[in-house]
Amino acid sequence: MFAEMLVSVREKSPIVHNITNYVTVNDCANILLACGASPIMADDIEEAADITSICAALNINIGTLNKNTIPSMFAAGKKANELAHPVLLDPVGAGASLLRTNTAAELVREIKFSVIRGNISEIKALFSGTASTRGVDASELDAISEKNLDEAVKYVKSVAAENDCIIAVTGAIDIVADKEKAYIITNGHPIMSRITGSGCMLSAMITAYIAANPENMLCAAAAAVAAMGLCGEKAKLRMNEKDGNSSFRNYLIDEIFNLTPQALKEGAKYEIR
Amino acid sequence: MFAEMLVSVREKSPIVHNITNYVTVNDCANILLACGASPIMADDIEEAADITSICAALNINIGTLNKNTIPSMFAAGKKANELAHPVLLDPVGAGASLLRTNTAAELVREIKFSVIRGNISEIKALFSGTASTRGVDASELDAISEKNLDEAVKYVKSVAAENDCIIAVTGAIDIVADKEKAYIITNGHPIMSRITGSGCMLSAMITAYIAANPENMLCAAAAAVAAMGLCGEKAKLRMNEKDGNSSFRNYLIDEIFNLTPQALKEGAKYEIR
Amino acid sequence: MFAEMLVSVREKSPIVHNITNYVTVNDCANILLACGASPIMADDIEEAADITSICAALNINIGTLNKNTIPSMFAAGKKANELAHPVLLDPVGAGASLLRTNTAAELVREIKFSVIRGNISEIKALFSGTASTRGVDASELDAISEKNLDEAVKYVKSVAAENDCIIAVTGAIDIVADKEKAYIITNGHPIMSRITGSGCMLSAMITAYIAANPENMLCAAAAAVAAMGLCGEKAKLRMNEKDGNSSFRNYLIDEIFNLTPQALKEGAKYEIR
Repeated sequence: MFAEMLVSVREKSPIVHNITNYVTVNDCANILLACGASPIMADDIEEAADITSICAALNINIGTLNKNTIPSMFAAGKKANELAHPVLLDPVGAGASLLRTNTAAELVREIKFSVIRGNISEIKALFSGTASTRGVDASELDAISEKNLDEAVKYVKSVAAENDCIIAVTGAIDIVADKEKAYIITNGHPIMSRITGSGCMLSAMITAYIAANPENMLCAAAAAVAAMGLCGEKAKLRMNEKDGNSSFRNYLIDEIFNLTPQALKEGAKYEIR
Repeated sequence: MFAEMLVSVREKSPIVHNITNYVTVNDCANILLACGASPIMADDIEEAADITSICAALNINIGTLNKNTIPSMFAAGKKANELAHPVLLDPVGAGASLLRTNTAAELVREIKFSVIRGNISEIKALFSGTASTRGVDASELDAISEKNLDEAVKYVKSVAAENDCIIAVTGAIDIVADKEKAYIITNGHPIMSRITGSGCMLSAMITAYIAANPENMLCAAAAAVAAMGLCGEKAKLRMNEKDGNSSFRNYLIDEIFNLTPQALKEGAKYEIR
Repeated sequence: MFAEMLVSVREKSPIVHNITNYVTVNDCANILLACGASPIMADDIEEAADITSICAALNINIGTLNKNTIPSMFAAGKKANELAHPVLLDPVGAGASLLRTNTAAELVREIKFSVIRGNISEIKALFSGTASTRGVDASELDAISEKNLDEAVKYVKSVAAENDCIIAVTGAIDIVADKEKAYIITNGHPIMSRITGSGCMLSAMITAYIAANPENMLCAAAAAVAAMGLCGEKAKLRMNEKDGNSSFRNYLIDEIFNLTPQALKEGAKYEIR
């Protein structure tokens, strides 16, 4: 099924509206183009809802949020809800400041999200009020491992149930779940945490996948997560001894550009619980 | 003549003031450095005019425009006009939101632009009030082809005449024209639309070219357009089977860095009508 | 000693709070990850002090400063001072506009900086009220050379003494000094000035080095400067005839990623005066 999700992105080339941070915005635009979608970034309140209207989906990322862009997130989110467009939230750094935690929480109250994607610490900070934080990275204390996987799946499903949306928790092991069904995905490579924006890029790409596959968003979100992890593995294999994180970033986007449905089908490592 | 335009950029190394979007700003800075110019970005109203004053030219790009940067565009533009500095407008996404269309239109009314560069949908939205839009990309409905080229050249010349400036419409076929003379340029490669910022980078580079060649801005603008297209072709040739759009972006900037006047002279594909 | 400074960054992996410009912010994040630290960017007044509190050090860079981010620089700086966190100032473009010069001067009056890093024109504009300016680049008139080196070292030490901090003046020859001791570092390559952000990246990296080595900040700052210059040399050696400034930027970050303590020890070119 993952292969079909990718085919659909390439065929429909959805335009994705991004209200996102200025750190990784260029990477988000290029990964959207790489996967077959088309990005537009617009965060002023005077145009946020208008831009959403001409797009197929909305990606809200709270990294470098500020007093000008926060109202735009709400305006665009509400417009997307009106139009029944898929909307994704990436609560970057929830738990690292009250502004981030509270803004993310209010967004969740006011906007109906199709998918919320974060690392485990961000998801815990947002939904359980308890998390360790290491800035924008997940704390080791919260990490999902084989040992606590059953418990983690149960937790993610319960958060999904409470919020009636898909929750994607990404890390060494990824869990993408609605209230009933969880994809557990083990693609990826630790070097992905040595570049900025691997999470932001994934959120942008999930938005493209759910935009192109609105009838099957859980599978689409899982496919995007597997695609990113698989391309991380492939990008790592391409590295020579002189390459570092900057070349890795380029290779990662390149791999997304070149990823075939067949390669995704064969390379995705997941189980369903 | 194109070769001389490039030589002049390298010799004068003009400082270009950019008020531009945060998506592709890093690429704009690096392409300016690659072509031999020097970039400075500054968009606060408190310094916009001051920064313009120490520069040779101004590049106004309305991607991710907002209520803080819009007044700075006007202030810097007026200062540049006072000082008789060349000024370029890139109406990114005109037609995609009222804010963009209206801001671009008001800029055109209040500021004397040397060059306005956009895709055909943006130019039509701005000057004819009619265009299809696909966000920041041109609509296929508006595309310039061999079939409608005569009509398109006439249209671009008429817009140039009405606004007393150079209009650069870029796409598969580029038209760079003032009211009397049009360069029709056919360099380039479709993969250029698979990276973010190829238009923004071109606008920044045109600004450097007209800054260094103020006595011959039409030729300078056309030279920059041909240079970008030619380097796109060369960058594409450098790609191996693992490369994607991210490597292409790097190769494109690299090619601009290494472009010789001789190579530009020999590789430029254009006619004049 | 330089080797130990790097080892400490890798072992402690300090989180660095950056309030920085949107031009080079992605490069700053990736260079911090490359050297072993962890970046977080946050510039809204509502969270600036909170984010500083969970970090080990603060990097304030005034490129693309604006009326929203300037108050955040003061708030975060004061909080960092309260918590005795190292704080670095990069006065990008001081001398190019009154806003930049005055903001940098007021920051220096209100915040206790551990390190101030700029090119010679920026440092002169900020502390001596006299400098030539070429936008964000140093003017050739101000350049430090073998001829005026003694005088320059004396000047940098005097500025360090007056401000009770470490001053890092970088260019073809770098001087990193407190009131008593100056490291004169001659690593580097001219191509480093052909990418945007080599100064910003260095400032971010110095912040990580002083965060990890608070008991020996002069040596730590000098080590970061030598590391950046050395990696610039190594990145240049990696370039083939098709590579330009974009590939150079990637190679530079890659070299920081792969730099070993041993290579830094052997490759650093410096003397102490």
